[in-house]
Amino acid sequence: MLPELQAVLGDRLDVSPATLESVRSDRSGYASAGTPLGVVHAETVADVQATLRWASTHGVPVVTRGAGTGLAGAATAGPGEIVLSTARMTRVLEINDTDLLAVVEPGIINADLNDILAEHGLWFAPDPASRAISTVGGNIATNAGGLLCAKYGVTREAVLALDVVLADGSLISLGHRSIKGVTGLDLTALMVGSEGLLGVIVGATVRLRRSVPGELHTIAAYFPSVTAAAEASVAIGRAGLTPAIMELLDATCLATVHAHLGRPTPPLGQSQLVLRTDGPDAREAAERALVILREHGGIAELAATAQEGEDLLVVRRAMHPSLETLGYPLIEDVSVPRSRLAEMFVAIEEVSARFGIPIPTLAHAGDGNLHPNLIVDGPEVPERVWEAAHALFQACLALGGTLSGEHGIGVLKQRWLAEELGDTQHELQRRIKLAFDPQSILNPGKVFSR
Amino acid sequence: MLPELQAVLGDRLDVSPATLESVRSDRSGYASAGTPLGVVHAETVADVQATLRWASTHGVPVVTRGAGTGLAGAATAGPGEIVLSTARMTRVLEINDTDLLAVVEPGIINADLNDILAEHGLWFAPDPASRAISTVGGNIATNAGGLLCAKYGVTREAVLALDVVLADGSLISLGHRSIKGVTGLDLTALMVGSEGLLGVIVGATVRLRRSVPGELHTIAAYFPSVTAAAEASVAIGRAGLTPAIMELLDATCLATVHAHLGRPTPPLGQSQLVLRTDGPDAREAAERALVILREHGGIAELAATAQEGEDLLVVRRAMHPSLETLGYPLIEDVSVPRSRLAEMFVAIEEVSARFGIPIPTLAHAGDGNLHPNLIVDGPEVPERVWEAAHALFQACLALGGTLSGEHGIGVLKQRWLAEELGDTQHELQRRIKLAFDPQSILNPGKVFSR
Ligand SMILES: Cc1cc2nc3c(=O)[nH]c(=O)nc-3n(C[C@H](O)[C@H](O)[C@H](O)COP(=O)(O)OP(=O)(O)OC[C@H]3O[C@@H](n4cnc5c(N)ncnc54)[C@H](O)[C@@H]3O)c2cc1C
Ligand SMILES: Cc1cc2nc3c(=O)[nH]c(=O)nc-3n(C[C@H](O)[C@H](O)[C@H](O)COP(=O)(O)OP(=O)(O)OC[C@H]3O[C@@H](n4cnc5c(N)ncnc54)[C@H](O)[C@@H]3O)c2cc1C
Repeated sequence: MLPELQAVLGDRLDVSPATLESVRSDRSGYASAGTPLGVVHAETVADVQATLRWASTHGVPVVTRGAGTGLAGAATAGPGEIVLSTARMTRVLEINDTDLLAVVEPGIINADLNDILAEHGLWFAPDPASRAISTVGGNIATNAGGLLCAKYGVTREAVLALDVVLADGSLISLGHRSIKGVTGLDLTALMVGSEGLLGVIVGATVRLRRSVPGELHTIAAYFPSVTAAAEASVAIGRAGLTPAIMELLDATCLATVHAHLGRPTPPLGQSQLVLRTDGPDAREAAERALVILREHGGIAELAATAQEGEDLLVVRRAMHPSLETLGYPLIEDVSVPRSRLAEMFVAIEEVSARFGIPIPTLAHAGDGNLHPNLIVDGPEVPERVWEAAHALFQACLALGGTLSGEHGIGVLKQRWLAEELGDTQHELQRRIKLAFDPQSILNPGKVFSR
Repeated sequence: MLPELQAVLGDRLDVSPATLESVRSDRSGYASAGTPLGVVHAETVADVQATLRWASTHGVPVVTRGAGTGLAGAATAGPGEIVLSTARMTRVLEINDTDLLAVVEPGIINADLNDILAEHGLWFAPDPASRAISTVGGNIATNAGGLLCAKYGVTREAVLALDVVLADGSLISLGHRSIKGVTGLDLTALMVGSEGLLGVIVGATVRLRRSVPGELHTIAAYFPSVTAAAEASVAIGRAGLTPAIMELLDATCLATVHAHLGRPTPPLGQSQLVLRTDGPDAREAAERALVILREHGGIAELAATAQEGEDLLVVRRAMHPSLETLGYPLIEDVSVPRSRLAEMFVAIEEVSARFGIPIPTLAHAGDGNLHPNLIVDGPEVPERVWEAAHALFQACLALGGTLSGEHGIGVLKQRWLAEELGDTQHELQRRIKLAFDPQSILNPGKVFSR
C-alpha cells in the first residue's frame, strides 16, 4: 500500500523514524499513541491530490499538518495514519496592492509573508503570538486570533478565497477575489477554523491592509489586583477607545516572564496591562487611556520611545516559553464577553485554590480571551487537572463564554464540545463533516470523537 | 392538513387571498406560478417550531420570509408551499454597551433597530439601501451589503450568534457572545447568506459599534466618463484612503434620479462619484480625496454643510425607485475586484450596445460591486434580456468577479450558479443543504434547482 504512494511521490514520502516521531505531537505537548505510517511533504497541489486519492482508495486516515505549533493536538498523528504536510508549499503567487490581496500557498510562515508584504507597505493582519513559527494554512484552519484581533479581526475576516482538495482528491475553489460575494453557501467561512476535518487548503487568497501610518504609542499600567486590571480594560473599551493591542498579565505571569528574561522583577503582586494605540489619533487615544487607567488605580506610563514600547511587547511575546520554567503548562483558552473578564479571573482564582493547582493567566483583554495555564509536572496530564479544566469551562460557559477562543478543539477539548454545542448541533456538525468527507478519512478522532 | 396547523396557530395562519397573492413575489418583480397554501405570521419561537414540525411531518415546503424586499426571488412562494414570516418577531431583547452587542428577534427592521441603538450612541453597521424596509433576519439570511461595507464590513462580520430552528422543528444555538470563539465548525458564518435553505433564524446576537464621533465630510465629483470616475475611485483606494461611502452613478442613472426628484439635471453625460469620510481624520482625508479626484479629471466639491452632504446621499438612495420611471429594471449585482471596475463598466457598455438594451449602472465603488439595471418593458423578462445578463456574468467572471455581490441567487441567478461554483462544489453545497434539511423542505427550488 505505502509503496504505491512512494512510487508517485518518491522521497516526498518520508518514513524516517525521527520524522515519524516528531509528528506524534504538536506544541500542546499531547502525543499520540505511536508513530504514523509516513509523512508526505507535499510540494504541489498534485502531490496533495495524489495523497488523498491514495488515502481514499485505501481508507487511510490523513492528518494535515502545517508547522505543528497548534495547542489542541489537532495536527498530531498516530498508528495507521498518514501525515500530509503543507509546510513546503511556501510560494507567494501574487501580491495586489490595488485589490489589497495576496494569493499564497498554505505553508508560508505568517511572519515571512508579512516581511514580504512590508516591502509593499502592506500587511496580513492575523498575528498569533506564534506568527514567527506558524503557517498561514494553519492560521486559516484554526481561525487564529492574536494580539491585534480586537481591532483588526480574526483570520476569518482576512480570507477571501480558498483552493481546497477534498478527501477524494478533487480540487475546488471557494470564495472570490472581490470583497463581496454571496454566490451560494459561504464554504470559505466554513473552512476557516475547520481543523483539517473538511479538506486540505492548498491555496489562499487573503485580504491585506495598508500599513497603518503614524506612530505607535505603548502604555504599561500596573494594578494591585488582576480584577482591577480587568476592570480598567473594560473601562477603556467603554470610553470608546479601541487600542490595537490590550494585553493583561497576572502577577505570576509577570514575575515569571521577567525572571525568564533576566529583567528586574516588577513590584510583587502587581498585574500588568499593556496597551498600544495606532492610527491617526494614536497619541490622543493614548493620553485618554492614561487618564482612565490611573482613575482605575493603575500606575500607568507611556513608553518614552518606540524601542521602549517594543520592549514591553517582547515581554508579552516571551510569555509562553517562560511558563515552561514553572512546570508543564496546560494552556487553556476560554473566551468570555468583555464585561465578564473580571468575573472570569475570580473564577480562575477560585478553581486554582480549590484544586491546589497554580494557574497563571494572561488575557487578550481587548476581546475577552483568557489563557489560564494549569501548571502540571509533565505532559501526562493527571485526571485531577482535567477536572480543574472542566470547572474552568463550566464557569466560562456560565458567563456566556466559549471554551476555545482561538486554539480550537483538536483532541484536548473534545470531551466538552457537545456540552457547549448541545447534542442537536453536535450531530448536525458531524453530518456536515460527512457531507465533505463521507469515508471520514480527514483527521478522524479530532474535534468529534470517532 | 392545514386545519391541523390552524388548530395550533389560530389566526396567525393567514389564508386571505390578498396575503397569499402578496407573497408570490418580492421586490425583484419575479412572481411564482400561483399562490401558496398559507402564510404563518410567527410571533414566537414556538410558532416557528410548530410550523416546521407540521411541515416536516407532512412534507410541505416552507418559504421563510422577512420583509420581502429581496431582489433575487428568494422569499417568493408558490402552490403547495407555506410561507413562514418572521416579520412580527420584532423585539429587542438586550442591548449591551460594554460587550457591544444586541440580542434581537429576526423581524425587526434594520432602521428601527438603528434608531433604538442611536439613543445609546451605538449602531449596527450593515446598511443596505433598503435599511428602512428590510428586516435584520433578512439581512443576515442574505449577508446584506450596503453603502458602508467597504469600510465597516458586510453583515457576516456583524453576527456573533444565531438561534436557529431546523427543518424538523428543533432549536439550536450557534456561535457565542464573546468576540472570539472556535468551538467546532463555524455554522454561524454558514447560516449568514444561506437564503432560507438551512434553517429559520429566530434570534440573533449582533455586533455593534459605537457611533463614530466627529464630522462627516461629503464630496460630489463629476467625470466626463464612467470609466474616468471608476479609475478615480481606484486611485482613492490606492492612496490609502478608505471613505465610509464611495458610490458611483453613471450618466443615465444620474439624469434619471435627478429628473425623478425634480431637481435640475447635472451636466449632460457626466458620471458622479459621491464620497463620504468619517472618523478622526475625516477632514484631512476629504481634502486629500479632493486633490486626487481633480487630478483624475473630476470636478469635485466638498459639501459646504452637513445638510448638503445628506442631500447628496438622498439622491443615491432614491436611485432604485427612480429607475422604474425608465421601464422595468432587472437589477443585476455583479462584483469584481476593485482594480477591474473600469473594465467591467466597459463590458457593460459593450453588452448594452450589442443587445440594444439600456443598462444604467451604479456601483458601490469602494468594494467593486456594480448594479447594472437592464431596462425591460415589464416584469416578464424576455429570453434575450437573460442572454444579455448571461454576457454580463461571463464578463464579470472573466475579470475575477462573482455574479452576486449582495443580492444572492434566489431563483433569478440559479442557472448560472454551477458555472461559477464548478460542478464539484455545487454538488458539495447540495450535500450540505441535505445535512441540515434531509427532506429538503426549506425553500426548495431556490439557489439550487429542484
Ligand atoms: C508560542 C505559541 C503562541 C501561540 N499563540 C497563538 C495566538 O496568539 N493565537 C492563536 O490563535 N494561536 C496561537 N498559537 C497556536 C498555533 O500557533 C495556531 O493554532 C496556528 O494557527 C497553527 O498553525 P500551524 O501551521 O502550526 O498549524 P498546525 O499546528 O500544523 O495545525 C493546526 C490545525 O490546522 C490544520 N491544518 C494545518 N494546515 C492545514 C492545511 N493546509 N489545510 C487544512 N488544514 C490544515 C491541522 O490539521 C490542524 O487541525 C500559539 C502557539 C504557540 C506555540
Ligand atoms: C430599494 C432596495 C434597495 C436595496 N438595497 C440593498 C443593498 O444595498 N444591499 C443589499 O444587500 N440588499 C439590498 N436590497 C435587497 C434586500 O433588501 C436585502 O436582500 C434584504 O437583506 C432582504 O431583507 P428582507 O427582510 O426583505 O428579506 P426577504 O426578502 O423577505 O428574504 C430574503 C431571503 O432571506 C430569507 N430569510 C428572511 N428572513 C429569514 C429568517 N428569519 N430566517 C431564515 N431566512 C430568512 C428568505 O427566505 C430569503 O431567502 C435592496 C432592496 C430594495 C428593494
